[in-house]
Amino acid sequence: MPSYKLTYFPVKALAEPIRFIFSYAGVDFVDDRFDREDWLNIKPTTPFGQVPVLDVDGKKVNQSTAIARYLAKQHGLAGKDDWENLQIDATVDTIHDLRAKIAAHHYENQPEAKAQKLEAASELVPFYIERLDQQVKNNGGYFVGGKLTWADITFVALLDYLNFMAQYDIIKKAENLKALREKVLSQPGIKSWVQKRPDTEM
Amino acid sequence: MPSYKLTYFPVKALAEPIRFIFSYAGVDFVDDRFDREDWLNIKPTTPFGQVPVLDVDGKKVNQSTAIARYLAKQHGLAGKDDWENLQIDATVDTIHDLRAKIAAHHYENQPEAKAQKLEAASELVPFYIERLDQQVKNNGGYFVGGKLTWADITFVALLDYLNFMAQYDIIKKAENLKALREKVLSQPGIKSWVQKRPDTEM
Repeated sequence: MPSYKLTYFPVKALAEPIRFIFSYAGVDFVDDRFDREDWLNIKPTTPFGQVPVLDVDGKKVNQSTAIARYLAKQHGLAGKDDWENLQIDATVDTIHDLRAKIAAHHYENQPEAKAQKLEAASELVPFYIERLDQQVKNNGGYFVGGKLTWADITFVALLDYLNFMAQYDIIKKAENLKALREKVLSQPGIKSWVQKRPDTEM
Repeated sequence: MPSYKLTYFPVKALAEPIRFIFSYAGVDFVDDRFDREDWLNIKPTTPFGQVPVLDVDGKKVNQSTAIARYLAKQHGLAGKDDWENLQIDATVDTIHDLRAKIAAHHYENQPEAKAQKLEAASELVPFYIERLDQQVKNNGGYFVGGKLTWADITFVALLDYLNFMAQYDIIKKAENLKALREKVLSQPGIKSWVQKRPDTEM
């Protein structure tokens, strides 16, 4: 088994899907969280000035979704064929589109643009959530193929961050997504991780 | 061979990597470009209100990167193993991060935020381009594994859009990326596509 170190800010956010996959699979990893004041020193050591970065036996890789896909393949969380993997990949990218739209206001510092982005998000969230909820309903209680994949794990791992950014519980009215959350959080490795992980608001 | 129809705005932008992969592989596809005034009628027919959408024997799939990855696997443009595919996926997502940063000003309608985003892009472009250029230099003239993959095709297919949004030639000083562009554009199927495709500015 390779030696893994995952470096990120001291939050869930983009690193949490990777932490969930490691935990699901029972794979040990160093959960390296740096203080925000150290970011400017760490940034130049990363491939493209961004985190999370995963160190695999001394080799650094970036991009959280690419890392999650790679680990999912190693641990039985990918689709059964290329077509299912296409559905999974599309779903994950859609989840990240939703994330970018929900979070846009937070990273905007011009007040008018900030207010406009928060308002745009409040219209977009129901549009996305209704469709994602229907997708789970249509596919046997999971996003793709009637079984647990890293698309399900990605969504549930990001939920705390999405809710923090949206400023409300975005799946409050989405019965299929709520049931999916319970299924993911009841996986023994994930359940144990959620109990022991550092308590952070996003 | 399945029957493919690719639906998008009448521009290169996010559909062009998919069109390049089809052309590279000599696969016929319907290049379905709709008029901008029809978008509000087409939007509700898409899975998540976005295009491009690829119709494969009547089944619709969305998300351009997921579609490109799927087609790349079918046509010999993926990596040789999971580790190479991780590098390819990370590179493609980094290219799309760069794209989002370059294009942010275009989709912002608040003047102050718009100006700030254009300025931020002008600082970020050299940072990304230097690193991408070095990556090609380090990997035998391609982004990953010393041979043509869909990461190379994605970058070159998006270049006209990136340059349009940046308002200058972003690889002007990047010798390795310029050589990569020539290698991609000299692939017979891609060369033929570029000669016959509709002439659009982005």
